[in-house]
Order: sequence, then structure tokens, then C-alpha cells
Amino acid sequence: MRVGILGGGQLARMLAEAGLPLGLEFRFLDPKPEACVRGLGELLTARFDDHDALAQLADCDRITCDFENVPASSLEFFEGRVAVRPSPAALAAGQDRLDEKRLFQALGMRTPGFRAVDSRPELGEAIEALGLPAVLKTRRLGYDGKGQAILRDAEDLELAWQAIGGPGLILEQWVDFDFECAMTAVRAATGEIRCYPLTRTVHRDGILALAHAPLAPSDAGAIEAQARAWIGRLAEHLDYVGCLSLELFACAGRLLANEFAPRVHNSAHWTIEAAVCSQFENHLRAVCDWPLGETAATGSATMFNFIGELPYPHPWLGIPGLHWHDYRKVPRADRKLGHATLVAADPAALQAALAQLGAATGLVPPAGPGAGESSDWGSNRTR
Amino acid sequence: MRVGILGGGQLARMLAEAGLPLGLEFRFLDPKPEACVRGLGELLTARFDDHDALAQLADCDRITCDFENVPASSLEFFEGRVAVRPSPAALAAGQDRLDEKRLFQALGMRTPGFRAVDSRPELGEAIEALGLPAVLKTRRLGYDGKGQAILRDAEDLELAWQAIGGPGLILEQWVDFDFECAMTAVRAATGEIRCYPLTRTVHRDGILALAHAPLAPSDAGAIEAQARAWIGRLAEHLDYVGCLSLELFACAGRLLANEFAPRVHNSAHWTIEAAVCSQFENHLRAVCDWPLGETAATGSATMFNFIGELPYPHPWLGIPGLHWHDYRKVPRADRKLGHATLVAADPAALQAALAQLGAATGLVPPAGPGAGESSDWGSNRTR
Repeated sequence: MRVGILGGGQLARMLAEAGLPLGLEFRFLDPKPEACVRGLGELLTARFDDHDALAQLADCDRITCDFENVPASSLEFFEGRVAVRPSPAALAAGQDRLDEKRLFQALGMRTPGFRAVDSRPELGEAIEALGLPAVLKTRRLGYDGKGQAILRDAEDLELAWQAIGGPGLILEQWVDFDFECAMTAVRAATGEIRCYPLTRTVHRDGILALAHAPLAPSDAGAIEAQARAWIGRLAEHLDYVGCLSLELFACAGRLLANEFAPRVHNSAHWTIEAAVCSQFENHLRAVCDWPLGETAATGSATMFNFIGELPYPHPWLGIPGLHWHDYRKVPRADRKLGHATLVAADPAALQAALAQLGAATGLVPPAGPGAGESSDWGSNRTR
Repeated sequence: MRVGILGGGQLARMLAEAGLPLGLEFRFLDPKPEACVRGLGELLTARFDDHDALAQLADCDRITCDFENVPASSLEFFEGRVAVRPSPAALAAGQDRLDEKRLFQALGMRTPGFRAVDSRPELGEAIEALGLPAVLKTRRLGYDGKGQAILRDAEDLELAWQAIGGPGLILEQWVDFDFECAMTAVRAATGEIRCYPLTRTVHRDGILALAHAPLAPSDAGAIEAQARAWIGRLAEHLDYVGCLSLELFACAGRLLANEFAPRVHNSAHWTIEAAVCSQFENHLRAVCDWPLGETAATGSATMFNFIGELPYPHPWLGIPGLHWHDYRKVPRADRKLGHATLVAADPAALQAALAQLGAATGLVPPAGPGAGESSDWGSNRTR
């Protein structure tokens, strides 16, 4: 079976790494000739609206995406030719932050307060309604902290308007969360859905830096059940096929839904080594109409993103249970170049391994989930 | 870092699958254009003695092999150009069954009785010395039961001589073993060695059919320590770098060394999902002078080889903890086309999963290691 993937970044790369043992073949479409999937299948180097390239991609058994902002016209091209999973409608639902939040509310999911902003006066009105601090974001095409600004006072407001001001914005209430977390689930075309354990996430400068899973029962408590219920409702509403992730704020034992990603997600990379079946394999199983794999964790894990610079692997690889992922990308500031996942049998063993890793690399990792430590988490109040 | 691999079969394929996440690139040399590594790196299609192709392969940072019978002249080509790991001398040590058994004896490892046979009269003398039944084998180039014949009576003897008779044979004493097992270890250039848990193996018609690991303590007992000591002695003697496997017979609580493979080995495929670091990743770590990974098991596993025919994956993939490996090879009788590994948290859970697999696929698997069952094993007295 051959799977066509729109986009050739690290998510496509890890989908292929999961699919090759299963006997799947891959064909990728990406405008960049240096796309990091080169060598893992056939790479078509062309724009996403290039009809010749799309026709070649359509000569696959299934189409899926490694990013959510695929042009709608590209997806329409496949209609009647080959199944696109998740569906174009499901992809579109996550492309506009305003529509996304309205959908969350319609499905009974709590969100931070928000207002549509299309002009400078509307921004003033929105701030009056929501108060400061607040976060101004473009409704479309933002990711990893791009296209957003934190507003703390009147001065921030002017700078932000100069940077991203214009129509098509959303102002979101500042959330003084206890921690951030993410729920990843996989849904089959049959409607069967399976959820991974809730993952605690830490962002730095708007980019995911760390993920810990599974959460300790003391932290997960009722919010894990809430997150499962919400993502189930969302996936069913979208008649979703494949993996999706819901990013959440935890505040005083309650959740607020921030955004969702209609694809495999950085917060669940730890599932490659520390879940029975990884998010990447499960996405492919769903896309190919194969039985879903188990989503249970097999240990405790902390994932570290390498952003802008990939460390020399030696001291890392010497730590027992450390798994290394080099995406083979050209280094650039703010670019995700790889990740490492440290896996141990239980939270206490993970904590010991984190200390060993810290001693070997000079890294000062935060406490693992369930180790009874949380002071390190509080300093990362960015989104 | 780029690794060149002589041979493009399933072992090379799984080395690449383990190495791609680590950021390694691969270049393969194989005479068959349909070699199953196609698509996982650059495939040079040429004979193993083609100097142009060898020169291209030499443009790698390390050379390793996916089979032991690489022509010595091909390996000599790399001398002074690029490091070959394991060394040509280590590869040569496993190429001749007679030299191999003599080496085992020199290192204090017990073996079944054996005699060199180069003529029909010598075969008669050897049988007189060792008795019947016995196994007649070619000294070189045999694998998966090829190039060998079981001699039970005078009639077998004539047929065997007609089939493989001539100079360069070895007659081995028949061993009425309790079970077969294999020890896989990885050794770094620094001399550090790490052993995987002892694996119980079952052959059918001379080809590995099943592997179970780890052995229950009641089965492993003192033989596990013996196997570790032997493989350590062998690896040190050969100044070995990479993974190697030692195939063993267990008889009345004692081990006999049968043969060793200077490469990753079918009996340790279960390490992909059920050891902290797989044999494939550890082989590459050793070859690349990276720190070795942990060899501890993370669960109980049974591996099934698919020989001649690959079953339809659906009912298999529906079993929790079942991992699927399709080598993408053209089906042919006696050809290994793929494998599946069933992993569970402990022997009891594995036993339950095996029963579930049996119900779903019609397969009647033998009892798992440590489940207190052994009657199914006894019927596979082939090598």
C-alpha cells in the first residue's frame, strides 16, 4: 500500500519511519528540495498547487498531511480520485482560530475568553471586554508562537498592532494556568477512538520544549477524563480519521481548550518508545483502515525538543533509556531539528535518569510527571 | 554519518529502519535490483566483487555487513580506506564450520562431537566415531538448513552423499537437546560488551520459526551465565565490534555451542520492541563508536517468522502488543518475508495474548517462556 503525504517535514519523516516496517511505501509532496523526508520514499518537489505533482501524489492508496494549512484547492484536487484522511473539512476546521474556538464552544468545551478583531477600534473594544494581559493572534497560519503577541500594557498594544495589525485577528484572554497539557487520540473510519495518556507540555518562547507522560494520577485526576470526553466529541463531530491532538490549559483543576491540531503532534512524540503503538503507527493504521493499536503507556517518558541547534549526541546516548531523533534538517533559529525521549519503567526511575542526563549534559531538566515537583514548570507562562 | 552495508536483505533493511531516526544515512551494495532495502537509502546494484561499486561504498564513514559470507577479496578492498566492522578476520571466523568449532573448543566452549569429512571413506570413519544419527554439513556457505542433511541410517547416508558429498564437509554428532537458545551481545571498540537476555528458539525444517524471550529464570538458570561468559570470550578473542549471536543447544542443564553469526540475528528481532535498545540500533551504535544502549528486556516477547508466505495483516494487527514487519520481498518458498513480534508486560500477559492471537488467526503458538509449558517445544528437533 502506498501513502501520499502533503508536506515533507519531521512529522512526515516519522510517519515514514513508523510505516516502513509495516511494509508501506511513501510518496511526499513538498516545495523544498531539501525536505527532510528525502531518502524515505519518493519526494515530489513542487508547490502544493502544482496539478502535475498532485496528479502523481493521487497515484497512491491514501493521502494524508503533515501540516494543517494545506490549501483547500489542493485537497479538492483529490476528490473522487483517492481518499484524503483526515478529510478536507476536518483539516479546515483547525485553520481559523476564531472558527475553532466557536466550534469548541458549540461542542460544550470551555475556552479562554476571546473576541474577533478586524480593526484597531475593535482591538480597543476587545481589550475593554477581556482586560489585560491578553494575546493577539492572527486567525490563520500561526504556529510555534509565530503570528502572535502578548499585550500587557498600552505600549505592547501599539507594537503588536504595528507587527500583525489588520483584519483577521483574534484577541484571547490571558490564562494564568497551572500547567499546559495535550490529549492525543486516534480515530478509525469505523468510529472507534483510542486516547493516549494525557501529556504535560512546557513551551519556551511559544515553541514546545518538553513533554512528560503519563501525568501522575494526582495531577491527571478528573481532567484526564474531561480531555478524553472533549477530544472524543470533537473527533466524532468532524468524522475524523487518524490522529488529532487537543492543546489544553489546566487551571485550578479545570481545563480550558486552547487549540487542536488535525495531525500527529509534537506533544506525543514520546509514544514512539513509551506507548504500545506510537501515534505515527496509529495514524497510518487509521488512514489505511487497519485495526488500531493500543495507546497505553509502557513507561514514564520525558521528551526534549532540539530547537535551532542539535547537541552532539554522545553524552545523551550514554544515558540508559535515551532515544535519539535527528530530523536531518538544515539548522536555523527556531527550527525543530530533532528530539530525544528519555524512557524509564516508572516516575522514580525517570527522575533518576533525568538527574543522570543533567549531570552528563549540563541540562537542567524540570521534574518528571508524578515526582511531586512542579516549581520548575511555573516559569514557562508562554503559549 | 553514512554507513555502507554489504548486502541488502531484511537485516540491512532493519538496520536502516533503526538508523534513520538516529540521523544516519545508508548506502547498500547488493547484486539484486529488487533487494528489499530499496527506498531506505542509496542502493548500488552490482556484484560484491565489482570494484567500481566497492569504491562507491568506500565513500562511507563505516562499512558493515548483513551476511557473513562476504568474499574476503571484497573486504580487503576497504583496507586503508574505511573501517569495516566487524573486522574481516571476525567475519572469516564464522565462515567455516570446522574452523568455527575448533575455535569454540580452543576457547573452552563445549560443542557437539564433530569430524572433518573430505571423502566418502572419511564419512564412514566419522560415522564410526560419532555414531548415528548425525548431521552432515558443508563447511562453508550453508544457512537456514541449506547444505546439510540428517543421517539416520545407511540409506540416508547414500542420499546425502549424492546431494552434498565431496571435499569440505563436517559431520556433527546428533544432539538430543532439551531446547535451542541463542545469546546476542554487542561489543564496542572500547571492549565494553553487553548481552541481551537469552532467547529460546524453535526451528522448523532448519529455519528459525519462533523466538521467545526472556527465558523464565527456571529455564535460564545457570545456562544464561554460561552463555554470557562464552560469547564474551568469543567477542574478546575476535576483537569484535558490533552485534554477534551464539546459537546453543541446552541439554540437561548444560550448553553446547552450535554456531555463531557475526552480525545481527533473527533470534533477536524481538529486541526491536521489547528491549530498551534493539540489536539493530546497538549494532549501529558500536559500528559508529557511539555509546552502547541498554540490552535489558522491557517485557515478554514471542517472535513469529513468516516464511514463504506473508499472512494478511488484519487479524494480526488487531491483537494488542502485536508488531508487524513486512520486508517487502518477492514471495518464494523458504524465503523469510517478514515477522511479527507479540509483546506483553510479563509472561502471563504474553500467554493470554498468544491465546488471543491463536483465536484470531487459527495459529497454534507454543507456550511462551516462563509460562510453565514446554510440551509444544519438543516436536521441533531440527536444526
